Amino acid sequence: MAHSRNGSGLLSVDAALDRILASLSTTTTTRVLLADALGQILAEDIHATLTLPPQDLSAMDGYAVRADDVAQCPVNLTRVGEAAAGHPWTGHVELGQAVRIFTGAYVPNGADTIIIQENVDAPSEADQSVITVREGAAKGRYIRPAGLDIAAGTRALAKGSLLSARSIGLAIAAGATSAVVSKPPRIGILSTGDELVPPGQTPGPGQIISSNAAFLSAFVKSCGAEAVDLGIAIDKPGAVSNAVMAATNLDMVVTTGGASVGSHDHIVDDLADGALDFWKIAMRPGKPLIWGKIGKTPLLGLPGNPVSTAVCALVFLAPAISKLGGGTYQQQLYLATITSDLPENDQRQDYMRASLESGDDGLTMVRPAHRQDSSMMATLAHANAFIVRPPFDPPLTTGDTVTILPMPRLF
Amino acid sequence: MAHSRNGSGLLSVDAALDRILASLSTTTTTRVLLADALGQILAEDIHATLTLPPQDLSAMDGYAVRADDVAQCPVNLTRVGEAAAGHPWTGHVELGQAVRIFTGAYVPNGADTIIIQENVDAPSEADQSVITVREGAAKGRYIRPAGLDIAAGTRALAKGSLLSARSIGLAIAAGATSAVVSKPPRIGILSTGDELVPPGQTPGPGQIISSNAAFLSAFVKSCGAEAVDLGIAIDKPGAVSNAVMAATNLDMVVTTGGASVGSHDHIVDDLADGALDFWKIAMRPGKPLIWGKIGKTPLLGLPGNPVSTAVCALVFLAPAISKLGGGTYQQQLYLATITSDLPENDQRQDYMRASLESGDDGLTMVRPAHRQDSSMMATLAHANAFIVRPPFDPPLTTGDTVTILPMPRLF
Repeated sequence: MAHSRNGSGLLSVDAALDRILASLSTTTTTRVLLADALGQILAEDIHATLTLPPQDLSAMDGYAVRADDVAQCPVNLTRVGEAAAGHPWTGHVELGQAVRIFTGAYVPNGADTIIIQENVDAPSEADQSVITVREGAAKGRYIRPAGLDIAAGTRALAKGSLLSARSIGLAIAAGATSAVVSKPPRIGILSTGDELVPPGQTPGPGQIISSNAAFLSAFVKSCGAEAVDLGIAIDKPGAVSNAVMAATNLDMVVTTGGASVGSHDHIVDDLADGALDFWKIAMRPGKPLIWGKIGKTPLLGLPGNPVSTAVCALVFLAPAISKLGGGTYQQQLYLATITSDLPENDQRQDYMRASLESGDDGLTMVRPAHRQDSSMMATLAHANAFIVRPPFDPPLTTGDTVTILPMPRLF
Repeated sequence: MAHSRNGSGLLSVDAALDRILASLSTTTTTRVLLADALGQILAEDIHATLTLPPQDLSAMDGYAVRADDVAQCPVNLTRVGEAAAGHPWTGHVELGQAVRIFTGAYVPNGADTIIIQENVDAPSEADQSVITVREGAAKGRYIRPAGLDIAAGTRALAKGSLLSARSIGLAIAAGATSAVVSKPPRIGILSTGDELVPPGQTPGPGQIISSNAAFLSAFVKSCGAEAVDLGIAIDKPGAVSNAVMAATNLDMVVTTGGASVGSHDHIVDDLADGALDFWKIAMRPGKPLIWGKIGKTPLLGLPGNPVSTAVCALVFLAPAISKLGGGTYQQQLYLATITSDLPENDQRQDYMRASLESGDDGLTMVRPAHRQDSSMMATLAHANAFIVRPPFDPPLTTGDTVTILPMPRLF
């Protein structure tokens, strides 16, 4: 058994995550249509091939004029044409002239200012009619200059960006139709434990239904990766490594259970030859964590308790999937005020299940679940945030400010 | 033209959303495997068919004992058996006896307390060996009582719940394998505007690529609904209603553009017969909004500017999709301190693109984008939050607290 232990001390969450991410490399790349790319990660920059807007545009409905003409108001101008989005007016606006213009239309040559229609009296929409500008505007007002959004040849989206709906919109507008993305990582999911039976079977005495794999499969999908079910490994030496070696083309394997020092847990023994770390993480829930390789496949061993599995998946697996896909992952933390007292914290970073509430005057309130036992899945399913308490956090009183990690919608 | 205008005043965001949600009804339901149900909304409660845990379980690796035996320590006990998860020990623990036990194992009859192995000296793992308990524990310590998580017959998940990864895990553990969910709403997406050309074409003079449909399609998918591309409608009376009437089985249509009072915008005229509201919303970006029906299909008309489209989609379309699916939608707002001064706000609720940053001592800082023009998609793509400023918000100074709406990951 050649696995290393990190002394008797506990490893911090950040240090464990750094070590995991440092040893992962990115999947290969593929070109996909942007229409099919939601949630994927760019493996190459996308450069704009178009300038947006392509020319100076009107930002409002009104009249395109020359600023010199409207320096003193009211003033009468002659309407000489009309410009709408997609229907440019191709003449030249002279002194004393105005062109009726609509939002998104090119600003005609000669004009340099837009007067909004609310500030104009116009007897008709006919050309050669005389309009009265009641209130002028500074030169350039309500004009969107060419290239305001993006210029052709510049970078629209950087390698490593997540393709969200809004970034897909930008890329399409800038002239792209496809993108080179990292292939979604293939994540093998393996449960361990003699007590587990698959969903749909009736558990016998001492047995429970294997639910961690169902959670992990859904969570992996919500992170943009592909979940590969490797089934349930029994508590026998070799069962884990055999299951992993039998699978192909996995970018990573996640196991649950089998990570404690109990003599019925064999994953640690399975992963010999120095390719394994067995960590005690300074976090609650989720102290034991395995990190190593079987063959060339990275293996992340999560604890077997459902809440521990879930918290460790959010804290370690989601960033690992981002890294495999060539992206970055930043957990955004917020502050909220707690609705009850909390005792002093020990040496482990605590992830407490909690519910966000809106308090008076916009304050974000957070209510910790009454009981935090790591076997209680219902408490997890009904919570929507974690209170994250650092090691040795002093006792807290109702109304104190705490750090919260909102649960992602599909977590 | 029988559409109603709401006087000269502006409609508040909340009032507009209330009206939209009030007139939507839920899609029909279908039964799906939980393994395929990520992101869907429950149309019926899920009740547990199993009790979790089914019996009292050990929460730790150690020894199952009788509390009376360990009231005074150290004390010697005789090991009489072993219980592991999935391998119950079927005897009865008598006074002076202990059963080796591992996390997740049933607590044997007769035992009422778990001593963690760190507090026990054990010469071997052989039965009949004598172990020494160095430190006792209160009766019931480290035992998870039967039903701690959930009891058979009780509700595991309520109708209207979103099926997240963690709620799927709970439902599977509680004995379910499938669920009755609302069918994902089918949302038709129709762009309007003579200036639009489809992605992949080269825009001519005055033309731009239609990107709002690409954004909306991805966004609708990220909300768990199905996107149906209805193409581009030209700026002609009847074009919008014809395109909508030609589509089938839509739960809602979303249009972009054509909602201003410019005479080139025909959607308002198209939607006659009193089935339409044309609203001026007290929000920025996104003042004009159309809400009504074409035939029996609800129609939400968003402004044409890309950022206005996106903000209105987040504020109005996402909750509408949740309502169509029988779920609820709560935008969680947070507080953050701004990194620059902001002028007084006018009568419109302002959604400013901004970037969250982590400041000293855990403070959440938010940096407003320098320019907020509603045509600037790059600013939207690179932002990760909105600063939400209420109407008539007074001038703000660097370091003041503002309300923020974090952008969903796939928004």
